[in-house]
Amino acid sequence: MAHSPLTEIMNARSIAFYGASNNVSKMGSSQLVTMISNGYPGAIYPIHPSEETVFGLRAYRSVGEIGTPVDLAVIVLPARLVPGVIDELGAAGVRRAVIVTAGFAEVGGADLQDAVNEAAHRAGLRYVGPNCIGVANLHARLNFTVFPFAGEPGSIGMLSHSGTFVTHLMPYLHARRLNYAEAISLGNEGDLDIVDGLQYYASRDQVRVITCYIEAIRRGREFMATAADVSRVKPIVALYAGGTDAGARATASHTAAMAAPEGIIDGLFRQTGIVRASTIEEVFDFACVLSRCAVPRGNRVGILTNSGGPGVLMADAVSRLGLSLPSFSPALQKEIGAFAPGTASLANPVDFTFINDWEAFFSRVPRLIAESGEVDVLLFYGFFGIETFLHYRDHPAVAPSLNPALMEAALRLGTDLQHTIAASLRNLPVPIICSTFLGLDESLIGHLVESGVPFLPTPERAARAAGALCRYGQWRRTHPE
Amino acid sequence: MAHSPLTEIMNARSIAFYGASNNVSKMGSSQLVTMISNGYPGAIYPIHPSEETVFGLRAYRSVGEIGTPVDLAVIVLPARLVPGVIDELGAAGVRRAVIVTAGFAEVGGADLQDAVNEAAHRAGLRYVGPNCIGVANLHARLNFTVFPFAGEPGSIGMLSHSGTFVTHLMPYLHARRLNYAEAISLGNEGDLDIVDGLQYYASRDQVRVITCYIEAIRRGREFMATAADVSRVKPIVALYAGGTDAGARATASHTAAMAAPEGIIDGLFRQTGIVRASTIEEVFDFACVLSRCAVPRGNRVGILTNSGGPGVLMADAVSRLGLSLPSFSPALQKEIGAFAPGTASLANPVDFTFINDWEAFFSRVPRLIAESGEVDVLLFYGFFGIETFLHYRDHPAVAPSLNPALMEAALRLGTDLQHTIAASLRNLPVPIICSTFLGLDESLIGHLVESGVPFLPTPERAARAAGALCRYGQWRRTHPE
Repeated sequence: MAHSPLTEIMNARSIAFYGASNNVSKMGSSQLVTMISNGYPGAIYPIHPSEETVFGLRAYRSVGEIGTPVDLAVIVLPARLVPGVIDELGAAGVRRAVIVTAGFAEVGGADLQDAVNEAAHRAGLRYVGPNCIGVANLHARLNFTVFPFAGEPGSIGMLSHSGTFVTHLMPYLHARRLNYAEAISLGNEGDLDIVDGLQYYASRDQVRVITCYIEAIRRGREFMATAADVSRVKPIVALYAGGTDAGARATASHTAAMAAPEGIIDGLFRQTGIVRASTIEEVFDFACVLSRCAVPRGNRVGILTNSGGPGVLMADAVSRLGLSLPSFSPALQKEIGAFAPGTASLANPVDFTFINDWEAFFSRVPRLIAESGEVDVLLFYGFFGIETFLHYRDHPAVAPSLNPALMEAALRLGTDLQHTIAASLRNLPVPIICSTFLGLDESLIGHLVESGVPFLPTPERAARAAGALCRYGQWRRTHPE
Repeated sequence: MAHSPLTEIMNARSIAFYGASNNVSKMGSSQLVTMISNGYPGAIYPIHPSEETVFGLRAYRSVGEIGTPVDLAVIVLPARLVPGVIDELGAAGVRRAVIVTAGFAEVGGADLQDAVNEAAHRAGLRYVGPNCIGVANLHARLNFTVFPFAGEPGSIGMLSHSGTFVTHLMPYLHARRLNYAEAISLGNEGDLDIVDGLQYYASRDQVRVITCYIEAIRRGREFMATAADVSRVKPIVALYAGGTDAGARATASHTAAMAAPEGIIDGLFRQTGIVRASTIEEVFDFACVLSRCAVPRGNRVGILTNSGGPGVLMADAVSRLGLSLPSFSPALQKEIGAFAPGTASLANPVDFTFINDWEAFFSRVPRLIAESGEVDVLLFYGFFGIETFLHYRDHPAVAPSLNPALMEAALRLGTDLQHTIAASLRNLPVPIICSTFLGLDESLIGHLVESGVPFLPTPERAARAAGALCRYGQWRRTHPE
């Protein structure tokens, strides 16, 4: 694909910052503070009419005063000042900007937006915004949104018509170890838009799945062509907002967007390989599996569980999604049966009813099913950790009667056995999607999630994510690269 | 309502325990360990053929040997031994049991189930199970499921055809401070069933909402009559599983249940006031608001947010649920406008765009809207904590330039201001449902959740919970107590 103008924005090595002072209660200041806090390694030049320094950085009266080339300008100034600043940037040879400033088309200021575009055209400048919250490339420690981010960068590329779904989601995703690689708050899309974003992320190896929060599609034809191209190489998950009348009323005042009726969107997404999500939570459930799993070769789902209820709920969900839940062959049932308790069901769902041998349940049996050739995706419920055993070990009435060999075996789930399990689950020949009601504070869960095994918080959400994975697999089989 | 036979089970003051030894890897043993660990204050009498003590408790050869009356027997023995044990219980005057043992109707053992029922009839004994995981009354520190529970008891009463949704959910719910008051794993319902469970919970003040995971309804007529009676005094939320062919196949081997087609269930629930949930997660989202909110007087929803995207998603969800999102009167908009930034939208959704005054946004404006008479339920998105400010305060480049008065104001969100906000949000004249992507580790969120303010993890889940609340409100208005 062609070189994207977003490349210089998302990988800027030097930034002129308009609109930050030493008053951190101002938006521009808090954005600069984020950039400093997150350890941006490039040069930052605050532009301020009077301050000598801003948060310890030397401030300049104008971008021309800096004296060296600058890759990017970030603008958080009142709207009426923006066209003049762009003229100044043009004169200084700055060719990229992010305009955070609100007060343009979303509040009826179309004239001012035109003035910005005329100035940008004169200056040969391309920009993101206005009315956005900024951008982040967490791998490059470039983040000038309003919130600092403390965790490891991930592999999700976000394109959002809402700044909230860049900033507020960072701690939410981090709590699941499912972080952004890069995120772009698109705002009103006065210049660079979601089509540019798709093209840019398609070229980025660190982005394994593209997520979109969409309030409006401004260039319909280009969007469809680009999405279809990009879907051939990496998955796009999108949530379309404002499809109802009440939602449309809300988007109009948000990003000046004219929303399309819901029915149109479904067809448009289906034709272009975009995996549609129905909630913001689902966007990231789907992104979790699409970024961590191989593309499946078919729609046959296997279910492995240690308890009946979750097995039933997954079977119901798989069935509603139109996926197949084949009964396992007698040969495979026999192989599984060799490891299972006598009370187990073996046909699919495979329900162990209880776990008699941890290594068998967590490692050997999923491998047996995955290698059988009888399923394309495996749903796996039933994880737990060692916390219950620690509880037993530490209880004064219980501890004296405990069998030391049994305790030692149990505690292996927190040491070598969890490495065995992670290695086994990460290298299966079909995608596996795990679910558990437990958190990352359980040692086994934490270890597996950190190892890249996809986990979702409930069995039904895992099943729906399997549906998304299969939908994308179907697209890829009929639309080769 | 009539006295429930479950009363003596759920509030037993003495328990004979069959099937626990000192080997904690056996199910019965781990269940006894749970009971000990959770500090059960009553008397426990392990019944064992040879051990002198079990986990430090004196063991007995038979229940007759104990010499004092026993309220309840817990049975975790092989299935074929159960009828004989019940005869023994009858002779000793024990009139209640929980039969954990599996291997009855769910694996084709209908004859053995008949033998149990004949023995129970002879003994005048009522029981829960078989093929269940036990019961818990967390307020009474009575819990002999397989997992110990460490948190505070809550106000949810659970009736489940899956033991997993009793045990595995305890840590899941606790992580949201949304705990069970009491939980009953119904198993095969050889005797006491979900109808008895509804009647029992209806009489329990500590149960504010009843949740059900249902695989089959065995006494249809009684279920409908009882559910309709109970729904007049407290809400019932239910998930019906096994509605699809694949799900039905899975339930048959799970609890010997014959599932009903999905369409029938919808009508049945609607006629009886049961709030239907579509996933296990939704059961507890709905239980959260139904246990913490007053019954609303209508379907008019107000939305307050500090950011556009979540506002749009809530507006879309409210609209899809058939609720109304009225535009606010000019008078109310003017009142809200006095506290809002100039960039705010005021019509409904009210979108502050940013928070200029925390006390106004978190306390005064929700109260204005709630007291306006223009809404019946308020959805409130936009919470944050003080962690970002602590991050600023602790950063060497940022700290020296910080305004101390501003920092002091910000840190009030972690001290007195959070008490002001909690007091205000807890006593509004209409129900409020909050949402945030942040966790309970954020001080403000943690404090509000602990104070009983209902919080859900995403704006759409909050909106769907508002839908559940309004549905129940509608039932109550047309079906007075």
